[in-house]
Amino acid sequence: MKVNIFLHESFSSMAEIIDGKAVAAQIGEEIRRDIEEFVKKGNRTPHLTAILVGEDPASQIYVNNKMKTATTVGITSCTKSLPADISEKELLDVIDELNNDPNVDGILVQLPVPEHINERNVCNAVAREKDVDGFSVYNVGRMSLDMDSLIPATPLGVIELMKRSNIETFGKNAVVVGRSKNVGMPIAMLMHADGRNETKGLDATITICHRFTPPKELAKYCSMADIIITATGVPGLITKEMVKPGACVIDVGITRITDPNTGKAKLVGDVDFEEVRQVAGWITPVPGGVGPMTVAMLMHNTFKAAKNLAKCE
Amino acid sequence: MKVNIFLHESFSSMAEIIDGKAVAAQIGEEIRRDIEEFVKKGNRTPHLTAILVGEDPASQIYVNNKMKTATTVGITSCTKSLPADISEKELLDVIDELNNDPNVDGILVQLPVPEHINERNVCNAVAREKDVDGFSVYNVGRMSLDMDSLIPATPLGVIELMKRSNIETFGKNAVVVGRSKNVGMPIAMLMHADGRNETKGLDATITICHRFTPPKELAKYCSMADIIITATGVPGLITKEMVKPGACVIDVGITRITDPNTGKAKLVGDVDFEEVRQVAGWITPVPGGVGPMTVAMLMHNTFKAAKNLAKCE
Repeated sequence: MKVNIFLHESFSSMAEIIDGKAVAAQIGEEIRRDIEEFVKKGNRTPHLTAILVGEDPASQIYVNNKMKTATTVGITSCTKSLPADISEKELLDVIDELNNDPNVDGILVQLPVPEHINERNVCNAVAREKDVDGFSVYNVGRMSLDMDSLIPATPLGVIELMKRSNIETFGKNAVVVGRSKNVGMPIAMLMHADGRNETKGLDATITICHRFTPPKELAKYCSMADIIITATGVPGLITKEMVKPGACVIDVGITRITDPNTGKAKLVGDVDFEEVRQVAGWITPVPGGVGPMTVAMLMHNTFKAAKNLAKCE
Repeated sequence: MKVNIFLHESFSSMAEIIDGKAVAAQIGEEIRRDIEEFVKKGNRTPHLTAILVGEDPASQIYVNNKMKTATTVGITSCTKSLPADISEKELLDVIDELNNDPNVDGILVQLPVPEHINERNVCNAVAREKDVDGFSVYNVGRMSLDMDSLIPATPLGVIELMKRSNIETFGKNAVVVGRSKNVGMPIAMLMHADGRNETKGLDATITICHRFTPPKELAKYCSMADIIITATGVPGLITKEMVKPGACVIDVGITRITDPNTGKAKLVGDVDFEEVRQVAGWITPVPGGVGPMTVAMLMHNTFKAAKNLAKCE
């Protein structure tokens, strides 16, 4: 107990805010330089094609952001907008065409797809070597076996953000809150895996909490953790009392709420930021934390796919 | 603290020993009846082929055990013994032949293979629908995504043993000690996954500990756990002090040691059985716990493969 109080005081100067936007910009600049080099050597400029089904405004914003960033790093891109009532078969045909197009390196189907289309079939239809979202059975299988693969951009962004912030993970206690297959599960896999293997796991002890973890137990696991990564979409889930003084808190949650004070819409994460920053050692803001990293790692994956495809030619 | 002492006393009558041999026999009998039915309907008798490379005595015993059990449940089987100096290419050719043999439902390559052969290439060479060990990238990927698949026999056996012993898992705290890709990782995946999905996950909160988890932290996580599953091969790793009174302790470890009292060889698990049984609520012995379940679930997988292949014909 005394130790905790002592630590708390020594951290009372507030958490270091991890600037995801700055780190992502740095990564983008590195990728831009590397692509410039790659193209100078006579390779084709990497190309990313996004598929957007329907007219969900949030999806449109996400895809636009990705495409804008692609341009800044030197990846050419194109968005195929398809009607919301397209059949699954027609969508799979479009994917197949892109799979066979030698000028396309990365294919990204913006999720969610309309309900009449099976998301899993869509994810698996993307050619494994162009699967820059890493959602196919093949890439998930390889990642789960610590083999080199295309890893989903958000988990990869979380890992990269920690690495570049010099967060110690080896033998540390980490909690992942949320078990989604696109975010929580891959993060847990990469966090606990062996650093000597191809995916260069972070060798942390990992606890996976989820919707059926009783709140009291969630609080207990979090309070033991050197690192908390939360990806639930439940605003305010992680409070000050749950965080060990000095811990690193990574907030993957992103929820649009109406600000009770201003009446305006705003984006918030899972973490009670203003309170938790008073005890944590490091904390990511929302927005400006993990979000920009996702886009940066998508660029990383597209360039990786392009390099792999260039080798095969 | 008082609660713990109270619980401890109420459990002082010693843990219930989970009889894996009896449960495995029960499962074997169910499979035998189902196969009888399957064959009566005009289907070919399920067939399992094992590949044994080299002359490791332990591997020979394992394979013999599996083949004997196959006979008792009505699965025909055959063991291909190959010389230790076979090349990887030649081994892959043998696997490919079996992949294309319409009379073979399950293919099992007994691990480990000699060092000059890449184990991963071998596991991936087995046709996904005949991969009764569930070690291929395809089946690992599907399992990790909670999709129906052939799941490695030991993890499946651990889950089945808990289900048939009526161990509560929903929202409970579980620890998996060991992160191997064939045992610890799949157990962690199935333990924490969503019960509403195809793999019918057990919805527990899961902590994965491993060689880099500091002993003090391992003890802490274990002492919070309602369920401890250990798969490390470190005899005596789990001691009485680490176990919460009433917890369920599943011992997947199996190590051959020399008994200090008798001077004879004997098999032991990771758990200090005599001590831990005094506090645990349930405990599996070694031998006679998880071991027989592995063999039973291999039969389950072979029959499952046979049913799937029969549907495709």
